[in-house]
Amino acid sequence: MESINRRRSIRKYSDKEVSGELLTRLLKEAERTQTMGNLQLYSVIVTRSEEKKRQLAPAHFNQPMVTGAPVVLTFCADFRRTTRWAEERKAMPGYDNFISFINAASDTLLYTQTFCNLADEEGLGYCYLGTTIYMPQQIIEVLQLPRLVMPVATITLGWPDENPPLSDRLPIEAIVHDETYNDYTADRIDRFYAEKEALPENQEFVRINNKETLAQVFTDIRYTKKDNEAMSATLIDVLKRQGFMW
Amino acid sequence: MESINRRRSIRKYSDKEVSGELLTRLLKEAERTQTMGNLQLYSVIVTRSEEKKRQLAPAHFNQPMVTGAPVVLTFCADFRRTTRWAEERKAMPGYDNFISFINAASDTLLYTQTFCNLADEEGLGYCYLGTTIYMPQQIIEVLQLPRLVMPVATITLGWPDENPPLSDRLPIEAIVHDETYNDYTADRIDRFYAEKEALPENQEFVRINNKETLAQVFTDIRYTKKDNEAMSATLIDVLKRQGFMW
Repeated sequence: MESINRRRSIRKYSDKEVSGELLTRLLKEAERTQTMGNLQLYSVIVTRSEEKKRQLAPAHFNQPMVTGAPVVLTFCADFRRTTRWAEERKAMPGYDNFISFINAASDTLLYTQTFCNLADEEGLGYCYLGTTIYMPQQIIEVLQLPRLVMPVATITLGWPDENPPLSDRLPIEAIVHDETYNDYTADRIDRFYAEKEALPENQEFVRINNKETLAQVFTDIRYTKKDNEAMSATLIDVLKRQGFMW
Repeated sequence: MESINRRRSIRKYSDKEVSGELLTRLLKEAERTQTMGNLQLYSVIVTRSEEKKRQLAPAHFNQPMVTGAPVVLTFCADFRRTTRWAEERKAMPGYDNFISFINAASDTLLYTQTFCNLADEEGLGYCYLGTTIYMPQQIIEVLQLPRLVMPVATITLGWPDENPPLSDRLPIEAIVHDETYNDYTADRIDRFYAEKEALPENQEFVRINNKETLAQVFTDIRYTKKDNEAMSATLIDVLKRQGFMW
């Protein structure tokens, strides 16, 4: 899995098709990922049609990858299939609740990431769209997702037509804690974020946004309290509508 | 990534140590996984001490892997580090809400799965413990997790000392939908679950549990409505206490 060390998000794709055969093989191999009680609590919706891509695009803030990629994959937490199985087998399903959403979402995200790692090994390029949970209702309507099915991740997929640099990462000491949580003192924060804050592209980012610090770009522009609170309310609402919360 | 085709959950480990060097290398390589705004919204707590393993075990229903594995890794959704960074940089963090939990949990699960794929490639064995979100409060206390940190996945890790058979998976047609959700008719359910229901070990499972169907083993014994509802209430409660919900 050497490819992990060269992994970048790819947003521009060549005209070369992603064959159905290759896509099915990778989706099938990813099924080996561990799953709760071997229930495989996920579904994948494959979007290839221009029409559906155009309909999905606004839910992803019209990021150009959505219409520009040959394939868009929407990975959904799915308790519908298991529930239908139970109904057909004289069993009383009890999966219309929050823990079942989290269980299914976990299954789905683990499956998604194995798929991504397999795609990297194959030389495919992809971009993970975090927007999936911001306006889920639009995605639900376009893909006609029934109750107990909830989109949790979207991948645009194709053959790379760009070669972006690796992005920076925090030093591993910033992530790993021995035995108990080692809280972040001012001194440790300075140390762990020094490299990121010193990068020319990040300093430029601060300048063009008229901010004092890089952290302010995140809190004031990219991920604001106001947006987060509005999206939290929407998400809980949609989870209720899909049957995953009271 | 040939190893994916041979992947099994490993619950018995040899006495051979997992070196700190190897563990750090894999945790570091997994950092290449995509992450929201490059914020890396996760932390990993490494448990090697016998005492901490004994304290964690009850939260995982005393499954023997927890005390039997050389290493236990608890992967946590973490907005604490980003929040501390903001606080130290004159920025106003706004991540004490539900969408931020889901964003951080997504980051964490993607990171966890890349780690698992890397561990497979290395020949390590691991078992994913879905119990992490069932009694999270105990884990939070043992690992001393502060506000805005929430355990979402646990992996027991070591060198394999067993060689279990591959477990079955649904046919890929059961998972993949073209363009829109293809709902599950009685006929499709029969077709997709036929192989699973015919497996001798699953028929034995139905027999020893005195059930009529395999689905009933899941709905009546393994994942019941009653348990799911109780655990949903607990999880929402703990998310509130950790600051991720109103």
